[in-house]
Amino acid sequence: MNVAIIGFGYWGPNLLRNFSQQSDCEVKLVCDLRQERLNVVKKNYPAVCTVNSPDDVLNDKLIDAVCIATPAYTHYEFSRKALNNGKHVLVEKPMTSTTAEAQKLIALAIRKKKVLMVDHTFLYTGAVKAIKLIVESGTIGKIKYFDSTRINLGLFQPDINVLWDLAPHDISILNHLVKEKPVSLNATGISHTHTGLENIAYLTLNYNSNLIAHFNCSWSSPVKIRKILIGGSNQMILYDDVEPTEKVKVYDTTYDIKPSTDETKRQLLVDYRVGDIFIPKLEKTEALSGVTEDFVKAVAKNEKPLSDMYDGMEVVKILEAADKSIMGKGKEVKLR
Amino acid sequence: MNVAIIGFGYWGPNLLRNFSQQSDCEVKLVCDLRQERLNVVKKNYPAVCTVNSPDDVLNDKLIDAVCIATPAYTHYEFSRKALNNGKHVLVEKPMTSTTAEAQKLIALAIRKKKVLMVDHTFLYTGAVKAIKLIVESGTIGKIKYFDSTRINLGLFQPDINVLWDLAPHDISILNHLVKEKPVSLNATGISHTHTGLENIAYLTLNYNSNLIAHFNCSWSSPVKIRKILIGGSNQMILYDDVEPTEKVKVYDTTYDIKPSTDETKRQLLVDYRVGDIFIPKLEKTEALSGVTEDFVKAVAKNEKPLSDMYDGMEVVKILEAADKSIMGKGKEVKLR
Amino acid sequence: MNVAIIGFGYWGPNLLRNFSQQSDCEVKLVCDLRQERLNVVKKNYPAVCTVNSPDDVLNDKLIDAVCIATPAYTHYEFSRKALNNGKHVLVEKPMTSTTAEAQKLIALAIRKKKVLMVDHTFLYTGAVKAIKLIVESGTIGKIKYFDSTRINLGLFQPDINVLWDLAPHDISILNHLVKEKPVSLNATGISHTHTGLENIAYLTLNYNSNLIAHFNCSWSSPVKIRKILIGGSNQMILYDDVEPTEKVKVYDTTYDIKPSTDETKRQLLVDYRVGDIFIPKLEKTEALSGVTEDFVKAVAKNEKPLSDMYDGMEVVKILEAADKSIMGKGKEVKLR
Amino acid sequence: MNVAIIGFGYWGPNLLRNFSQQSDCEVKLVCDLRQERLNVVKKNYPAVCTVNSPDDVLNDKLIDAVCIATPAYTHYEFSRKALNNGKHVLVEKPMTSTTAEAQKLIALAIRKKKVLMVDHTFLYTGAVKAIKLIVESGTIGKIKYFDSTRINLGLFQPDINVLWDLAPHDISILNHLVKEKPVSLNATGISHTHTGLENIAYLTLNYNSNLIAHFNCSWSSPVKIRKILIGGSNQMILYDDVEPTEKVKVYDTTYDIKPSTDETKRQLLVDYRVGDIFIPKLEKTEALSGVTEDFVKAVAKNEKPLSDMYDGMEVVKILEAADKSIMGKGKEVKLR
Repeated sequence: MNVAIIGFGYWGPNLLRNFSQQSDCEVKLVCDLRQERLNVVKKNYPAVCTVNSPDDVLNDKLIDAVCIATPAYTHYEFSRKALNNGKHVLVEKPMTSTTAEAQKLIALAIRKKKVLMVDHTFLYTGAVKAIKLIVESGTIGKIKYFDSTRINLGLFQPDINVLWDLAPHDISILNHLVKEKPVSLNATGISHTHTGLENIAYLTLNYNSNLIAHFNCSWSSPVKIRKILIGGSNQMILYDDVEPTEKVKVYDTTYDIKPSTDETKRQLLVDYRVGDIFIPKLEKTEALSGVTEDFVKAVAKNEKPLSDMYDGMEVVKILEAADKSIMGKGKEVKLR
Repeated sequence: MNVAIIGFGYWGPNLLRNFSQQSDCEVKLVCDLRQERLNVVKKNYPAVCTVNSPDDVLNDKLIDAVCIATPAYTHYEFSRKALNNGKHVLVEKPMTSTTAEAQKLIALAIRKKKVLMVDHTFLYTGAVKAIKLIVESGTIGKIKYFDSTRINLGLFQPDINVLWDLAPHDISILNHLVKEKPVSLNATGISHTHTGLENIAYLTLNYNSNLIAHFNCSWSSPVKIRKILIGGSNQMILYDDVEPTEKVKVYDTTYDIKPSTDETKRQLLVDYRVGDIFIPKLEKTEALSGVTEDFVKAVAKNEKPLSDMYDGMEVVKILEAADKSIMGKGKEVKLR
Repeated sequence: MNVAIIGFGYWGPNLLRNFSQQSDCEVKLVCDLRQERLNVVKKNYPAVCTVNSPDDVLNDKLIDAVCIATPAYTHYEFSRKALNNGKHVLVEKPMTSTTAEAQKLIALAIRKKKVLMVDHTFLYTGAVKAIKLIVESGTIGKIKYFDSTRINLGLFQPDINVLWDLAPHDISILNHLVKEKPVSLNATGISHTHTGLENIAYLTLNYNSNLIAHFNCSWSSPVKIRKILIGGSNQMILYDDVEPTEKVKVYDTTYDIKPSTDETKRQLLVDYRVGDIFIPKLEKTEALSGVTEDFVKAVAKNEKPLSDMYDGMEVVKILEAADKSIMGKGKEVKLR
Repeated sequence: MNVAIIGFGYWGPNLLRNFSQQSDCEVKLVCDLRQERLNVVKKNYPAVCTVNSPDDVLNDKLIDAVCIATPAYTHYEFSRKALNNGKHVLVEKPMTSTTAEAQKLIALAIRKKKVLMVDHTFLYTGAVKAIKLIVESGTIGKIKYFDSTRINLGLFQPDINVLWDLAPHDISILNHLVKEKPVSLNATGISHTHTGLENIAYLTLNYNSNLIAHFNCSWSSPVKIRKILIGGSNQMILYDDVEPTEKVKVYDTTYDIKPSTDETKRQLLVDYRVGDIFIPKLEKTEALSGVTEDFVKAVAKNEKPLSDMYDGMEVVKILEAADKSIMGKGKEVKLR
């Protein structure tokens, strides 16, 4: 299986390194418009060819699969061409700029019988794998809330706002853990630049059940916070990705509302339980190696990868609606 | 100056202790419906009289000032009667249940020439005092965002939702630091109880300038977080109230957007600066002793206290609008 | 049971408060040389009598038990007189200034059939109780090391060095957890005052088995650290008393040395295991209320308290030897 | 300048990477006994030759400088041969196994007019550079204590104990900051392996002035701690190397003993000051690149590097004496 990488900016080198260490595949081509980026490839990976034009990749008959690590607004076009030319595609998040584009890509991938996978890297971390196991084991009970804070002094993106940049991580984790889909959302935010793209934004997802999800995203914080709180009916989880060794804490803590026989609402019987805390040991393998392995396997065995094209579309659908809500000054936008 | 306290639940004992240590005033009466609460007073403060009926306090001619530390829905009625009977009033937050009530109390206090003060205790903490000085000194520049998280496994209130319970702290701090008033807000939330009162809620305040404020409040978190991030154009502040000794950190960190001469939005010139961090030493006196001292002084000298009735009304106005926004599924509610 | 307290400085008020809340006993007398300290008693506990002279306590026939919370150098004399006068004694740590004095007190207590208890408060904390249960359950295996750091900007004591002030806490915990007694010790330290009393000191306890214990004590640190690491052959414990909610962490982590069949020492087969972490919920009752309860029970039922006179003597024996080692420039001092 | 590296275990790859990025020098040869280690070199650095025998390096006329990253017990022999063959030497810490060996190497380096440098990497970290500046600025005053804790579940070394493995970092930092040399030391420790090499050890350095230094080193801790406290007469520094962004904290905190006119020692006038905290921004360049740059510059300009051979010998002298003290059951060992 011959792989090509289009885009050698921030994430490209990580893709190259991980695909290089993967068995059953070989990176043949790396493409970037900037010659100085390609020189980095040449120096460290003399066996890999480099080209400036994406078309040289997309038209290369020897290439079986393409990784697209370019700015978000180009994802659709490159993915479309790659699929059209019979190549499997691993595309960075967000999968596309609109749900319509995502739908077209999915239809195309089905027609062409090719793998279309989105790199939601976090699903392959030891932390999310452990949380997934805990949630599936049922011990934490029904999830009642999901509250994520992902802020730091981040690189302001020139073509997408902070939600499109950061929230895909959290939304993909949420959708991975919770089967129920949100029915509507609200989003607010602000842009401190002339681009009008929000550098701080807040997103609430509403569900038919009594679940709520909230996302706090910012490129403008002096401190780096990467915290997700997951409240179950029996236990709660704190996933703090900044922690070096204690990323996932399971709290045997909950509150339980007793049905009151009282007529008045003034009487509120709440049972609070604060118990032990458990910190599971996590797998330490690099998440991205799980992504590349899963992609190679999906191509080889024609299987659905863990982070598939439908997951990618779900995330885009939410981000698109969030933009609409921000434009509508925070008004509720229906998702279904 | 003779003081009476109505309500001896969670906060009443703190008021009693602090007023007892105040010079130029004496606590004469404590009132609570529950006899076992009054027994606590009798045991520890034998010189203080206890009564069961609020009217016994409100009609007592010897009482100059009344502290109202009862559930929120009673604040208006007790305050109104106290003012009507010529007494100064220190009322717990939130000041009233509606803006209309707050307006009536303010008019009454003016007519009766009495002090009406709201106990926004946090304004009297060493941390907020230090932040106020820093903001006023101008070194942090213009405030661009205010982001507060105040969550823990808190006592579910039977008569008010989590915003009415927790957000007054943060809103009063925000209004204390920033002169500009919000023009609208959005709020979302969820109730996990049969009362329909939100135990998790999110609030965004919108301004005419490019300022945004956000509040994350929850009674349902396994961990206690009390963090406020304040982003200035030159520096940023992290106020972490859970930290024992490093509550306020001033980051000499900022981002600066260069006006781009470029026609395209793709080019984004951002100057990032990550610099030193400064942790000021804070005053350690108990915040509530500052409140009681300020109240006694305001009464004695007929001065405006730091946390006055207009501040109290501003908070209620925001909370009332937040309820409306939650009811309206997060839609924008205008404040002015 | 009528109780008297001699010494109303830093710890006395805590003793008074806890004994007052204890059933089956009553605090009758508090003694202190300083009238302003006694005024505090009078104000807050009008039913308690106050005296200036310890003899007025020690000779009072109505007093059944005496708490001695005076400077360390007076512990022996007051305890001796109290026992001689037929009173039970609860003495603060360190029990006495020398082992010889401790022995005499023990002999006297036995002869007079009175309880002589030392206030090693930490044994009654939720944290130490939890650790004790874990150690006794056997899951952590055999204890191989005990490493304590207890430093902060502490009150320089005028009559004892920092080991006598702080190490009793850690030594009493160690002796509570480990049955084996140290055979010798080494201590080093430095005095930054004209008193010659060390304000920084280090202590190593040596055992016949392959256990080692080390104590780092300082009154001169800008940060407060209260950490004890306990290394077992199967698991390890970190007890961080500064942590508000996660004081005790049990690490399913260990190293295991494989017996090498190799002749050369160069080959070292070590099995490292880094596993889950468990944070038990702790009892939250105030430790000192456990002390006063245990004392009252020991007197009433003529039972041995958890923290008894032999434990007190063991601590003094170690501190006395530590002084000798410091004087001998760190040389080994035998304990048995 | 042609460089060779002997030893390609844990640290060798870092040396290779940093020398490769250095201008004015080229890595020509890497030597290791293990072919699989050399294969790593071949794969990633195809231009670098690999050999199995150290002699092939030491006898190679084209090699100007040799880096020795082999086990400690081989440092002397390889360094000696390299110097004898007219090569400059960068040797890992500890420089040699004995002070006598260090002296011989120094004499040889002088005679051969070659650079002999020891890789005390920490001196080149942003943190230590910042601390050095602060200490030299004089604001912290005279240093009164240095207290280091360097513990984790570390790799048990087969040929040296934990002090020889970890303490060189801290001793080199201490000697870098403080001109005064210790006059004696005490050390204690324990071995939990059949090798008899201590895996936990404690070291106290004694000085003629009222300075004390203490080192707590362990390979057996479930948690990683890398903390150095430096107490000055005016300010104190906490250097926490585990902290991602706040490694160096300067506390404007101190204690000051007032000369007492009192005859009795019971009166102790201590002035405590707890003030602001300052966290300087640190340089972020990799420390090892500073080492390799300094080495190349020292060779090119025939200058003394920051971490020179005398510093290396000082560290060995202390470690050798520490072994003697441990053997002598903690007794004081004179250093001069």
